[in-house]
Amino acid sequence: MIIDRLMDKIEQMQNPTVVGLDPTPDIMPQNMGIFDFNKAIINEICDIVPAVKPQIAFYEQHGIAGLQAYIETISYARQKGMFVIADIKRGDISSTAQAYADAHIGGGQFDVDFATINPYMGSDAIQPWLNNCQVYDKGLFVLVKTSNKGSSDFQDLIIDGKTLYTIVGENVEKWGAELVGNHGYSSVGAVVGATHPKELADMRKSLPCTFFLVPGYGAQGGTAADIALAFDKNGKGAIINSSRGIIAAYKQEKYAGLDFAKAARQSAINMRDDINNVLKG
Amino acid sequence: MIIDRLMDKIEQMQNPTVVGLDPTPDIMPQNMGIFDFNKAIINEICDIVPAVKPQIAFYEQHGIAGLQAYIETISYARQKGMFVIADIKRGDISSTAQAYADAHIGGGQFDVDFATINPYMGSDAIQPWLNNCQVYDKGLFVLVKTSNKGSSDFQDLIIDGKTLYTIVGENVEKWGAELVGNHGYSSVGAVVGATHPKELADMRKSLPCTFFLVPGYGAQGGTAADIALAFDKNGKGAIINSSRGIIAAYKQEKYAGLDFAKAARQSAINMRDDINNVLKG
Repeated sequence: MIIDRLMDKIEQMQNPTVVGLDPTPDIMPQNMGIFDFNKAIINEICDIVPAVKPQIAFYEQHGIAGLQAYIETISYARQKGMFVIADIKRGDISSTAQAYADAHIGGGQFDVDFATINPYMGSDAIQPWLNNCQVYDKGLFVLVKTSNKGSSDFQDLIIDGKTLYTIVGENVEKWGAELVGNHGYSSVGAVVGATHPKELADMRKSLPCTFFLVPGYGAQGGTAADIALAFDKNGKGAIINSSRGIIAAYKQEKYAGLDFAKAARQSAINMRDDINNVLKG
Repeated sequence: MIIDRLMDKIEQMQNPTVVGLDPTPDIMPQNMGIFDFNKAIINEICDIVPAVKPQIAFYEQHGIAGLQAYIETISYARQKGMFVIADIKRGDISSTAQAYADAHIGGGQFDVDFATINPYMGSDAIQPWLNNCQVYDKGLFVLVKTSNKGSSDFQDLIIDGKTLYTIVGENVEKWGAELVGNHGYSSVGAVVGATHPKELADMRKSLPCTFFLVPGYGAQGGTAADIALAFDKNGKGAIINSSRGIIAAYKQEKYAGLDFAKAARQSAINMRDDINNVLKG
């Protein structure tokens, strides 16, 4: 099952992190194409980082040419042995959900390993994705508690003593029940922001089979001590994302003299070590 | 403001409906391309229907070629004077939300008049879209209470005596406060399913400036009497969608002998008359 293969690779590389490929104009070196930028970074990190997470909005923004660069990027990353988590946050119902699932985890041009999805429309919006997970051996990360400040507007609302995100999280645990792998985690994971350490710790306890994708480390303010709470007592159960902190590392004084790809590698190593120090400390 | 122009066109055509362009394989005549199919339908309805609503999932499913057909479709519909509501249900935060907003209501290749968006991530996920509405004179429809059965899973949860969708709806009304046009409705509308008539009636009362996009008429079970509750006492304030009921009408016995485009026209006329009969009755 794909969640087992991802966890094996994390174990083998001793690196529970994913690099977000969000090539915004302010990050890209002048006169460089999106795919060339991503390719250089993938070449530098594929032996030490298990996965990449392209945010499709930054490709969709450039229309057809942008989405062509997206396809080139996901194909190249997979060819180099990396897992690809498509950060697409799609959410719709029945035949429409099926069309999205087929587009992204059903063997089509946008085919990847994992996709992020939005739960607002309810369980019948999730079912077609679960079917594709079964048929194509794919995985999901469902939005539960996101890393942004405004996540409190609706996700923190309290229903009979429980927050909305807690209820969504409990559903994620259920949706994954038939997709639990050998390591005890299911292929239906949850997005839980590093910017909410207490919530991370609570959810780690209450959702024992749910693997977490954790955004918000670094640029958004989450520290290694914060994100340590996303892991179980064996140091498993989560993968931590950094985007700007890695792909724009070359703009930091700390990495002066390195080109963007070498700086990305060094920053990815630093992130890995930072997290492992806390997990093993 | 765009909401005024849409309402003017609805008034002029005496037709508060929108046709969903969801070209699924089971609907399409054999050996026909998606754009050719949509173009034939647009040609037949553009003088009597004010707007179309392509569901991007059915294009994204076909990768780059599908999205090229999407671009051709939205361009052609606008060229024929129709409003385009992109049913994309995007939802993300800050710079990512800005990238999506720029992609769909910011002058790029996917540029349309209105986009549907998902509120789960909170107000900072909405703000970039509101900015683009101001700068480019565009509109939104925020998911509030969707037409599917599973919408009850989260949207109907009760917080201090109010449903989640009611709270989201109140926020939509606030988000639109600076985008209220001459007719008293704002460019920030809400998606409210025809399959929930009581909820439609309640929301029509409590959200006086929020224009409704109402899916679920016809194929999903909503009747003209149900959707009448989405309108104010002047018969304004909503636009009703039908997709399959129009573009697959040629498969119904009722339209035997008509090709798919002529059947779509006849079915669009019947839908218009069905709704007007109830609104004026």
